[in-house]
Amino acid sequence: MQIIRKIKDLRRVIGSLKSKRRSIGFVPTMGSLHEGHLSLIRAARKENQQVVVSIFVNPIQFGAKEDLKRYPRNFKKDLASCKKEGVDIIFYPDIKEMYPQGYKTYVTVQGLSDLLCGKFRPGHFQGVTTVVAKLFNLIQPDTAYFGQKDAQQVLIIQKMVQDLNMPVLVRVLPTVRELSGLAMSSRNIYLTVDKKRDALVLREALIKARELIGLGENDPKEVVRKMRQVINKNKAAKIQYISIVDLKELKPIGRIKDHALIALAVYIGRVRLIDNAIIFRDVLKRNLKVSRLLRRDTFALT
Amino acid sequence: MQIIRKIKDLRRVIGSLKSKRRSIGFVPTMGSLHEGHLSLIRAARKENQQVVVSIFVNPIQFGAKEDLKRYPRNFKKDLASCKKEGVDIIFYPDIKEMYPQGYKTYVTVQGLSDLLCGKFRPGHFQGVTTVVAKLFNLIQPDTAYFGQKDAQQVLIIQKMVQDLNMPVLVRVLPTVRELSGLAMSSRNIYLTVDKKRDALVLREALIKARELIGLGENDPKEVVRKMRQVINKNKAAKIQYISIVDLKELKPIGRIKDHALIALAVYIGRVRLIDNAIIFRDVLKRNLKVSRLLRRDTFALT
Repeated sequence: MQIIRKIKDLRRVIGSLKSKRRSIGFVPTMGSLHEGHLSLIRAARKENQQVVVSIFVNPIQFGAKEDLKRYPRNFKKDLASCKKEGVDIIFYPDIKEMYPQGYKTYVTVQGLSDLLCGKFRPGHFQGVTTVVAKLFNLIQPDTAYFGQKDAQQVLIIQKMVQDLNMPVLVRVLPTVRELSGLAMSSRNIYLTVDKKRDALVLREALIKARELIGLGENDPKEVVRKMRQVINKNKAAKIQYISIVDLKELKPIGRIKDHALIALAVYIGRVRLIDNAIIFRDVLKRNLKVSRLLRRDTFALT
Repeated sequence: MQIIRKIKDLRRVIGSLKSKRRSIGFVPTMGSLHEGHLSLIRAARKENQQVVVSIFVNPIQFGAKEDLKRYPRNFKKDLASCKKEGVDIIFYPDIKEMYPQGYKTYVTVQGLSDLLCGKFRPGHFQGVTTVVAKLFNLIQPDTAYFGQKDAQQVLIIQKMVQDLNMPVLVRVLPTVRELSGLAMSSRNIYLTVDKKRDALVLREALIKARELIGLGENDPKEVVRKMRQVINKNKAAKIQYISIVDLKELKPIGRIKDHALIALAVYIGRVRLIDNAIIFRDVLKRNLKVSRLLRRDTFALT
């Protein structure tokens, strides 16, 4: 396993792989790897000749008041995990390597970036699309792997790839959950055991939504109302948003018809957590519909 | 020579070239090809195994009141020119192919895009960087060719390529001029013979600037004042701007030291024309300095 810290060195190695026509699977991460990341790495390992993992806490996707400084970092452990999973190359640049003095260029997916989480994290998705564009240009992967946990991020990246004609296939894998149902997140490390128990309300609210819709409810307002009830029972939880939107424009839908993305952000104490579910009414048509909606790949359901 | 109109077909052809490791030289154009374009095509032909020319009048780089509709188009003539120069592939998409309904993604080089021409053409350079990013992703060239005529455009594209780590070499070739000294431009077609005579004031002002600086003048204000005098003698000419700036940030310089970009935009009647010169005091150090300033390539001097 190679650890590469410099763009110059990465270019040389990637150039050599490309000239040998080796297929490259790429998993971009901010490190602090958990089972969610590892599931992406395993898929990349299975489907490609070479696996590249980037570990880079991307400063431009954090707001001024967000947790850039205290975001968990554990390179040693990440290294061991990557080795165990058979990763070939870790790209682990420092900030100056990625954003040298005088850096000026940004990629923006308009509209989608200002909704849901984007409403509360201005500039966040521009930071994500910019760093992913850079990493795609550097690593030139055949396939890149993302988790459904960050559904909005994935949809925005897929839109960027489509709009800018990037020669990359974007694969989306299911959210990996702890046994309790809590979605895996590097930020779970901020939670005490007690708070982890409180954090289960996100998943509980999503399960409630699925039950209601499965039993015939098609009014998003009613679904959201019941989800709020579930969450508000817990005194530690403070809802930032719950939205039921379409998968293409991420805009609120008036009625739940074929499909919906149910997304929410909730503060558990001072820790902000997100989760989501994608609902399809017609299970039989599910795969067809999903792949049409998302064009390049099937959105996993969790 | 292949003419390709669909992205799907282009992907197939480029994929095949890539798998054969053929080097690709790319010349992006808006068609209506003149000797300036042809000089780029000839350089691409000389330096690459395959030459791709794109012909696409990019709507998103035109302002609402600009000349998108009447911009000269002459595909038949362009085709003949490309054939004669040994072009392998012409990519000639229509607007829907490049910007399908729901298009949302833009690449912006902040700062540089708001100066000089950008001040008077808001959104113009965002339109340019976005389409060039798309074309680079589609054609995956080893080298792309641009003319110094559009100096600001080239500097912005070089900045985008550098910032986003695009695996493309940007080559800049000298402005090609008519015998009279008028810089070649597709928009020269808007000019009558009389107006073409009036249009020579742009070049005359640049020559005056070079003379002054060559004789020791180092105050940009004084140089601009004398350039204005040259242009204002002509009643048909109306200056939009004359700026003397550094090559990196495109910001006005207080004193002309090592180098300067002298750029101007002038209306001749209703036709807006641009021209520029890059000045280096120390001719001996010229190549060294230029290549350091522009990192990837030598900016040609005309």
